[in-house]
Amino acid sequence: MDTITVSLGKRSYPIHIGSGLLADSNTLKQSTSAAELLIVSNETVAPLYLARVEAAFAGRRLKSLILRDGEEYKNLESFTRIIDELIEATYHRDACIVALGGGVVGDLAGYAAASYQRGIDFLQLPTTLLAQVDSSVGGKTAVNHAKAKNMIGAFHQPIAVLADTDALATLPPRELAAGLAEVIKYGLIQDLEFFIWLEEHLPALLQQDPAALLYAIRRCCEIKADIVAEDEREQGRRALLNLGHTFGHAIEALGGYRKWLHGEAIAIGMQMAAEASEQLGWIDPTDAKRVRSLLERAGLPTSATKLSAGEILHRMPLDKKADSQGLRLVLLKHLGHAVVVPAPDTPVLESAIARGLAAG
Amino acid sequence: MDTITVSLGKRSYPIHIGSGLLADSNTLKQSTSAAELLIVSNETVAPLYLARVEAAFAGRRLKSLILRDGEEYKNLESFTRIIDELIEATYHRDACIVALGGGVVGDLAGYAAASYQRGIDFLQLPTTLLAQVDSSVGGKTAVNHAKAKNMIGAFHQPIAVLADTDALATLPPRELAAGLAEVIKYGLIQDLEFFIWLEEHLPALLQQDPAALLYAIRRCCEIKADIVAEDEREQGRRALLNLGHTFGHAIEALGGYRKWLHGEAIAIGMQMAAEASEQLGWIDPTDAKRVRSLLERAGLPTSATKLSAGEILHRMPLDKKADSQGLRLVLLKHLGHAVVVPAPDTPVLESAIARGLAAG
Repeated sequence: MDTITVSLGKRSYPIHIGSGLLADSNTLKQSTSAAELLIVSNETVAPLYLARVEAAFAGRRLKSLILRDGEEYKNLESFTRIIDELIEATYHRDACIVALGGGVVGDLAGYAAASYQRGIDFLQLPTTLLAQVDSSVGGKTAVNHAKAKNMIGAFHQPIAVLADTDALATLPPRELAAGLAEVIKYGLIQDLEFFIWLEEHLPALLQQDPAALLYAIRRCCEIKADIVAEDEREQGRRALLNLGHTFGHAIEALGGYRKWLHGEAIAIGMQMAAEASEQLGWIDPTDAKRVRSLLERAGLPTSATKLSAGEILHRMPLDKKADSQGLRLVLLKHLGHAVVVPAPDTPVLESAIARGLAAG
Repeated sequence: MDTITVSLGKRSYPIHIGSGLLADSNTLKQSTSAAELLIVSNETVAPLYLARVEAAFAGRRLKSLILRDGEEYKNLESFTRIIDELIEATYHRDACIVALGGGVVGDLAGYAAASYQRGIDFLQLPTTLLAQVDSSVGGKTAVNHAKAKNMIGAFHQPIAVLADTDALATLPPRELAAGLAEVIKYGLIQDLEFFIWLEEHLPALLQQDPAALLYAIRRCCEIKADIVAEDEREQGRRALLNLGHTFGHAIEALGGYRKWLHGEAIAIGMQMAAEASEQLGWIDPTDAKRVRSLLERAGLPTSATKLSAGEILHRMPLDKKADSQGLRLVLLKHLGHAVVVPAPDTPVLESAIARGLAAG
């Protein structure tokens, strides 16, 4: 088991990464002393792992809530269901929510934990690659609004993250690829060496080689822990983690949160960011091709031809990376070095989106 | 204009108290530089003050949302309406919500500000005595759940509080009395001298003597600012501010949030706390009578005879002052000195509630 610490003073917490963590009842038990627990999971993950997590917490007051699976259920209605469960159980301020699942479960359960009685503990047990490398770490919690992604939420740090790499074995290939999009993101934004490592080790990751997976997850968590410790509330550097997300959120919303997995939309968005960076003369055409090639080898879509550049542009101004002065974007100054900049002029942006939408 | 500062490091903010503040467009303008503003008010307050607040912010992007008036609208549905307005306006992370109204408007607008895009600014313009002396200061925001009060919320500090004492002139006597309940609370919990001042100056307050009102509001805000600066997230001393609230929240919920104003329920609850303190031998019967007498002179109910002690007891365990170890209560060690203690045994508690329910 590897452990990385997210350093946030009194709110610091460990990320444990390793094989068999969901079956390790001691580590589970020690991660919260709460006497009242609500496990939130979904219909896909619960049959696989819920029983062992419940067993680890035997002897405490314990309830489980199983939500439907999918980004389209990450909304205020599911949030309300979690709150209702907590209230029906008359759980108190020292209760703890356990999020067992992917990014949707973690974001939803985290926002409920942030809001119930103005904030209770929550524990992240991420079971997808995307959640293990990205969404379970850093305290961003939210639900979607029908018109825009993650519009309603809170910064609320978990008390611990336990990433069991064995859980990835049951992950459908499409979900594994979606997680790889975020993995590649870390290389692109600030670690060229890791990007090159990914170019070399992508086959091992796709074959779920344990050592390769552990290394990749660990490296992503190290980068994220470092960024979050420096800029918890995204007033500066943390925004770099949103590479591809402004485009991607628009694509997700246009697909009703059903057509694209988050990681897939982010892959298309990162390709658009690379195209824009190329048009600005910051990265070479060969760099943009390297991005596209790695994403495609990971099994990710890099084009979404049924959408138009105009539709996507129209959806972007509501993104959280915008302020009243206008939209800001994360673009690539070099491969392995992202920057936050005011969005380029509309023609440049539209052309970059159009090139991203086209097949490579 | 008097100004008190709530000292919370980078999140410090001023409370301005004075006559004519809602007509003082310079002070209003200077309190936020946001280019995008949403004023949230209610159908009672908006006809009186909305136009002048809108005028002060002329030239900025400005929307207003007028909610229905009453504690029963402090729910997730109203919260969602505020979020929908922000999204329809495509407001950004540097937008500001202006809460123009009493405690319900402030709590609702504050929770929406805490949640929209994970947190935007909000400005408190409290128009009731209760909001001016208590709810607008300190960053507690929330909505009610059908089964319990303030169950869903966040700690989110405003960027400024502007309390216009002139607004109290249009306050119905019942609302003024409800505010006096919280004023009396400050005397009871930690300022015997202020309690005695209130016994002497209650007639002046009821007649809305400007100097008396200004002094009372200022003293309450000083005490609250001091407590909040020391214990923002209620891990210790801040809990004292909940004197009467555990009983009161149960009474409010049993009345469907329609029968009693918050301050009225708190008055009944403070009487119950005084009765319990007397039964424990901490305060004299004459002290309990002084509490009852002052509340009654303020026009507040001190009994709620249609409820039973059993009903109220049954509703109390869900209160936020409880943890899994059991219910805690704020009681009076002496007049002017409150303490947080584990709830007394059920017979003592039930008898105190019953005595509180009986007319004096």
